[in-house]
Amino acid sequence: MADPASKSMDDLVALCKRRGFIYPASEIYGGINGFWDYGPLGVLLKNNLRDRWWRDMVLMPPKGPDGERLQIVGVDSSIIQNPKAWVASGHVGGFNDPMVDCRESKARYRADHLVVVRQASGEGQMYAYVENDEASEAAALKKLSKYLKGDVGETETVALVDLDTSELARIVGPDTKEPGTLTEPRAFNLMFSTRVGATASDDEDNTAYLRPETAQGIFLNYKNVVDTTRVRMPFGIAQQGKAFRNEVTPRNFIFRSREFEQMEMEWFCHPDEAAKWYGFWQRERLDWWKRCGVSEDNLILRQHDTDELSHYAKQGCGTADVEYRYPFTAPGYGELEGIAHRTDFDLAAHQRESKAKMEYFDQERNERYLPHVIEPASGLSRGVLVLLCEAFTPDPDRPSKVYMKFQPDLAPIKAAVYPLVNKDGMPEIAEKLHAELTRRFGTRGLIEFDAKQNIGKRYARMEEAGCPFCFTIDGDTPGDQAVTVRHRDTLEQDRIAIDLVPEWLGEKLGG
Amino acid sequence: MADPASKSMDDLVALCKRRGFIYPASEIYGGINGFWDYGPLGVLLKNNLRDRWWRDMVLMPPKGPDGERLQIVGVDSSIIQNPKAWVASGHVGGFNDPMVDCRESKARYRADHLVVVRQASGEGQMYAYVENDEASEAAALKKLSKYLKGDVGETETVALVDLDTSELARIVGPDTKEPGTLTEPRAFNLMFSTRVGATASDDEDNTAYLRPETAQGIFLNYKNVVDTTRVRMPFGIAQQGKAFRNEVTPRNFIFRSREFEQMEMEWFCHPDEAAKWYGFWQRERLDWWKRCGVSEDNLILRQHDTDELSHYAKQGCGTADVEYRYPFTAPGYGELEGIAHRTDFDLAAHQRESKAKMEYFDQERNERYLPHVIEPASGLSRGVLVLLCEAFTPDPDRPSKVYMKFQPDLAPIKAAVYPLVNKDGMPEIAEKLHAELTRRFGTRGLIEFDAKQNIGKRYARMEEAGCPFCFTIDGDTPGDQAVTVRHRDTLEQDRIAIDLVPEWLGEKLGG
Repeated sequence: MADPASKSMDDLVALCKRRGFIYPASEIYGGINGFWDYGPLGVLLKNNLRDRWWRDMVLMPPKGPDGERLQIVGVDSSIIQNPKAWVASGHVGGFNDPMVDCRESKARYRADHLVVVRQASGEGQMYAYVENDEASEAAALKKLSKYLKGDVGETETVALVDLDTSELARIVGPDTKEPGTLTEPRAFNLMFSTRVGATASDDEDNTAYLRPETAQGIFLNYKNVVDTTRVRMPFGIAQQGKAFRNEVTPRNFIFRSREFEQMEMEWFCHPDEAAKWYGFWQRERLDWWKRCGVSEDNLILRQHDTDELSHYAKQGCGTADVEYRYPFTAPGYGELEGIAHRTDFDLAAHQRESKAKMEYFDQERNERYLPHVIEPASGLSRGVLVLLCEAFTPDPDRPSKVYMKFQPDLAPIKAAVYPLVNKDGMPEIAEKLHAELTRRFGTRGLIEFDAKQNIGKRYARMEEAGCPFCFTIDGDTPGDQAVTVRHRDTLEQDRIAIDLVPEWLGEKLGG
Repeated sequence: MADPASKSMDDLVALCKRRGFIYPASEIYGGINGFWDYGPLGVLLKNNLRDRWWRDMVLMPPKGPDGERLQIVGVDSSIIQNPKAWVASGHVGGFNDPMVDCRESKARYRADHLVVVRQASGEGQMYAYVENDEASEAAALKKLSKYLKGDVGETETVALVDLDTSELARIVGPDTKEPGTLTEPRAFNLMFSTRVGATASDDEDNTAYLRPETAQGIFLNYKNVVDTTRVRMPFGIAQQGKAFRNEVTPRNFIFRSREFEQMEMEWFCHPDEAAKWYGFWQRERLDWWKRCGVSEDNLILRQHDTDELSHYAKQGCGTADVEYRYPFTAPGYGELEGIAHRTDFDLAAHQRESKAKMEYFDQERNERYLPHVIEPASGLSRGVLVLLCEAFTPDPDRPSKVYMKFQPDLAPIKAAVYPLVNKDGMPEIAEKLHAELTRRFGTRGLIEFDAKQNIGKRYARMEEAGCPFCFTIDGDTPGDQAVTVRHRDTLEQDRIAIDLVPEWLGEKLGG
């Protein structure tokens, strides 16, 4: 495993475009900030991760802490819901980020991402920069040094949001030279809004929202699921799908984008059992990411501090994050999945606002109650980013200088079948093997076929695509009925009987 | 196969809610017109259809007309794109429906769905009603009869949009008694709009749109796909995902909803070959729906008349629809999938607006050209509706009065395992069989387990859920090591050795 800090995001983003994993959205129109499209390999990788989560959470869920069978059902709710749902959930009132504009440069910043550097005395001008942005920090220090004519002395840094608004006049923005151009922080709601139907008159309000999380679609359907299926407490409802957040400053590739996919499960249980399940799902979810091939060294489980809890988690027993060591956070970590104890916050809020009865009658306990909820909420888009970062392996000794070390079961291309040259009967043998492997493994991923390029280029392309095995038909094959298998990670080559290839590949793919 | 006209949509909608296929979105808040949520069984059914399309179009595409291997790759593009894309595609300017409001009743109608009935003389008052809505038509005829004091004589019907606007004053709206309350038709753009990012000033326009079709996301990525993969003409790019249309009058359950899912493939080819591929994809797609278990009698392939062609198809050689006989169209048909010859309309438009070069250099032909496009564009949501309509089979002799005859491979629940009673060792045997079937078939759908209800109720529930096989462990099982298998469609019961159940089920599921 390569050290994450040695991996360059620029190199990864370039590979993702070059090999068709991820393209900037609307690239021919200059793009659109915060939106990304998945190319031919990217959509396969994303689908593989999506389907594995669905298999392991809904179709074949894990055993519970006492070895019992867990019940989890799926739903797929609309992105647009009745806007009252988002009032009840607290998103209309509370889902805001503080935003600061620069009047001069027209740049916009998350207020909570800005830090100012100043003399330890705290007097004179202060210089703002964007946290964790080395170029921005260096520029601020340079401006401070110039202001003090090189005699900097002792300095200190303060979060912009901890300063008094009267001090704004003394702050120089990250992209300007004169102080006083930053506006006061103002709350900016992160939900995208739209209008449903045409309004007949101006006073009719038909504003609706694109969901900022899939979770609420689960709470909205909780009552219908309880009433129309045979689930019994404790049980889960899971959902995968798009969510939208009008981020002030989208950044770090698909880590913080404005349109993304989530995989969320709400686990409903008796309040007395919530602590037990909170612990169970933390362990289970951390373990799941490891089973997806993410290195233990790059994963941590971190308990949130009280002051960073979401509005719903404040009254609960907390939130824990599965964090990954991304190249842009290394040596630190960034969020991959949150496991939150949401208490009965959401069901109680929807019960209050909708007047629908959400209480559950527990026959075994002979007790009526509002269940508590444990939520393992993961980003599918972030998961794809983690798989990409984890797979990205620089190797100066290879012609491609890099290969993608995906777990075979998650790799978009399962194998390649190559005639060494496009003649002498080799393409025909290759076509036949390709057809057989596609018949056997085609539902699990692509079997590549390519007869035309220089074999070295073909191999290099498969290394960058993360294809674990290449089977090559050469001049000896018609005689010995064997092919060469080339291993992506080790570059070792074995000779194997052509008839045994399907079985051999089946074993390697774990099926 | 039951006659579609005998199937009631109300009964189907009720079953869909009762069994957890489809719920009204935000039902606890009174719903939201035109939006639906998929419940535990609905999401499994939808995923099965989605995955079969993806398998048959991308992972294992059909052979071409000459038996050749076809190349189709997938993409997954953002719902929100740079708004210039929708200007180029013609959707900002031309994707409108004519809308009429009633000033008195506040009702809103699609102008092209309104018909007026009047005396054959054409004089006097006219009465508007909604096409294909029997109650609305009957009401209009009744009002006409009353106006003419029963002496109706010869009448005629005229489409509202064919009348002169000066005649509006003589028209009585569908929901009013006095004439002159309908507004002139006005164009209403069907795209949902939103705003990306906060605007710093009022004159900055950051309006963006939710995509009204997945197709444009393919055209936007065409150049990147050609540049970063090894596809060669002819080839296809496929996409599945959500699309949004702000329909004036959503109706017929999930047939015309405001948020829905599409499965679209754009097939790029040399202009001279477009006619050949247009024919090929019509045949292939019609056949595909038959292979999904849709009865031949309920499907037709219909060529569009010239006057109903979309803006992009006008200059092409046309559009053909695969149509299905829905309960609400029977004995007629309604759209399920369109196969359009889009010519080079889209690529040419994006080339013009974006200045990106879209021409393809064909090495074999030694020719540079803009490819023509054949588009098989299907609704996943509509496909689910067709599967539901097709499966819905009234049977007055059953306790449930109805069963859902899904093809086993598409059914959400593959099998149920039931101990006859919850004691005498039966649950333990059932649990073991359930675990084994889940291990073997769990990735393809649910294996139901339920020990508690009356066995008749359990069977009835599985018939409504469309589960093809129930395996029952009874008092004889510990002795003869056999179970009873009950067939959903015939209600026949066979005895089968418990060890043979996995193999038997594997054969029935076709895998």
